[in-house]
Amino acid sequence: MEIIASAPGKVTLYGEHAVVYGEPAIVSSINKRIYVKCRPRRDNTITISALNLSVPGIILTIDKDGEIKIETDYGRVLSAVSYIKEAIRLTQNYLDIKGGADITVSSEMPVGAGLGTSAAVAVSTIAAYSYSHGYRIPAKEIARLSWETEKTIQGLASPMDSTIATYGGFIYLKYDGKDFDFEPIEDVNELPLVIGYTKRLYKTADMVSKVKNLIDKYPLLGKNVINLIGKIVEMAREALKRNDLTMIGELMNINHGLLETLGVSTKELNHIVYIMRSLGAYGSKLSGAGGGGVAIGVVPRERINEVITALKLIDATPIETSIGGSGLIIEERDG
Amino acid sequence: MEIIASAPGKVTLYGEHAVVYGEPAIVSSINKRIYVKCRPRRDNTITISALNLSVPGIILTIDKDGEIKIETDYGRVLSAVSYIKEAIRLTQNYLDIKGGADITVSSEMPVGAGLGTSAAVAVSTIAAYSYSHGYRIPAKEIARLSWETEKTIQGLASPMDSTIATYGGFIYLKYDGKDFDFEPIEDVNELPLVIGYTKRLYKTADMVSKVKNLIDKYPLLGKNVINLIGKIVEMAREALKRNDLTMIGELMNINHGLLETLGVSTKELNHIVYIMRSLGAYGSKLSGAGGGGVAIGVVPRERINEVITALKLIDATPIETSIGGSGLIIEERDG
Repeated sequence: MEIIASAPGKVTLYGEHAVVYGEPAIVSSINKRIYVKCRPRRDNTITISALNLSVPGIILTIDKDGEIKIETDYGRVLSAVSYIKEAIRLTQNYLDIKGGADITVSSEMPVGAGLGTSAAVAVSTIAAYSYSHGYRIPAKEIARLSWETEKTIQGLASPMDSTIATYGGFIYLKYDGKDFDFEPIEDVNELPLVIGYTKRLYKTADMVSKVKNLIDKYPLLGKNVINLIGKIVEMAREALKRNDLTMIGELMNINHGLLETLGVSTKELNHIVYIMRSLGAYGSKLSGAGGGGVAIGVVPRERINEVITALKLIDATPIETSIGGSGLIIEERDG
Repeated sequence: MEIIASAPGKVTLYGEHAVVYGEPAIVSSINKRIYVKCRPRRDNTITISALNLSVPGIILTIDKDGEIKIETDYGRVLSAVSYIKEAIRLTQNYLDIKGGADITVSSEMPVGAGLGTSAAVAVSTIAAYSYSHGYRIPAKEIARLSWETEKTIQGLASPMDSTIATYGGFIYLKYDGKDFDFEPIEDVNELPLVIGYTKRLYKTADMVSKVKNLIDKYPLLGKNVINLIGKIVEMAREALKRNDLTMIGELMNINHGLLETLGVSTKELNHIVYIMRSLGAYGSKLSGAGGGGVAIGVVPRERINEVITALKLIDATPIETSIGGSGLIIEERDG
């Protein structure tokens, strides 16, 4: 049967970078999703059509025989396709099957922007492929296979993207590079969020390494700033449970300052952060690794259009979304 | 005899805001000065000519009879003149004399920008007035009378501006609103500094109160961020002694992040801070109370012109200076 599986992108609300040092973090799903449609084939061939991966300036064509032809060498789309191939390979191994499939992937968000698209691609692919072949893999296994996919392709990967893509909502987690624990934060209202995206100038690994160098030189930052971010995360968890928008925002502002202290912000990210605040955001911060990429703000609904206009004016790509929505959704089509 | 006394403005290099909570701070003189010329009169009349107080948009005229006529009610020049009057009154009381004087004041820096001009005005006035009447007041007394002047006019004042205007150089100090201790940091090379000035939107008292409210709500910030700023100051003191430009700059960046965490930065200040960093500054930070006002960067000499041009392009008034130069200088002219 044909299956359409979809999984959400994510943003880190609190705790990025400190999470590497054993502190907790909070991530949430966004209501922008990756869709993977899978129809089983009678042979063992896999075809992948990536028709709508909205990476500006890139055209990806897949010919009718299923051969992937990337018209540029732009790594991010190639990369999205490679996640699909690897996810299928691992799922086939897990299920011990070899069935072919026609896969179509599309995205409601830019790929490679730090919104967790590769995990959402992997989660959707694993679900669509397995369900279309009649196997209902449990969510936990889907998340694990997605993490495996990311690790195989990237070498290193955090499990948080796969976890939030699978379960959605708000997740409180600890991951120190070895051990991983998470629990959902229940009863949180969906929150209106605006994302501003600027070009990423550095890879996540570069930024993690930059922070490590700073902490090696100034161990006080490790002891104090990292630890304080952890405490901010704990407070944010309570603020989210109470749907206390004021405190949710203030803690974002504070967390941003602490990330600034760790040296991972940029002129462009700060620009987004302050535009959001000046237009009435409850709070705003860079989100994720920094060094460019994504900044987020919790914005009152009636001010969202203003914020979006302002972001366009400074050439920051705005994404309006809500956070905390569904994780993996699997729909069956005909037979 | 005629005396020309001059005293420098100042910038806070590290520790603003935390100083209110008992942590140390480091301030330095800048090589922009206030000049006060004083010629004793035979009568008891005081005339004050403020010919060159570079507050944009203000014209201050003093008629030939010594009558002060402010052509606008713009408070900052009026205020500079009121510091002179009060400084003379306190000096007269201290010396128990009543001699008149013709005073001329001029400034190499904008008045009321957060550069410590009112203390520099008071220090220069006290020195020029007393020396021109034949009294050599010790530096310590000049600093104290200047602080008294500021307290009388402002209601509350920190002694640090008067101290640095008197002694110059680099000063490490603690002042918690009651007790004041300071010591010079010796053997520091003068450093090239660029100041970017933007409109101040809030008074110092407003910003201090904003920080207090944040700390009241999030006591962790008080315990951790404030304390960490204090530790950064201690490290900066050592870095200054070693003339370690790299660390001097990195600690500025870290201190800026901590001030950001306390919520006292603004879009405009961050803009200056990041322009300086992108043009090769060793480090940069907001300086003083925040909420607009002054940001500073230690900039390699060969990049100063670029930084100045960039600041002009974003409508931030640039001031090129060095820091750590002389405090009060008293010159005698004829008899």
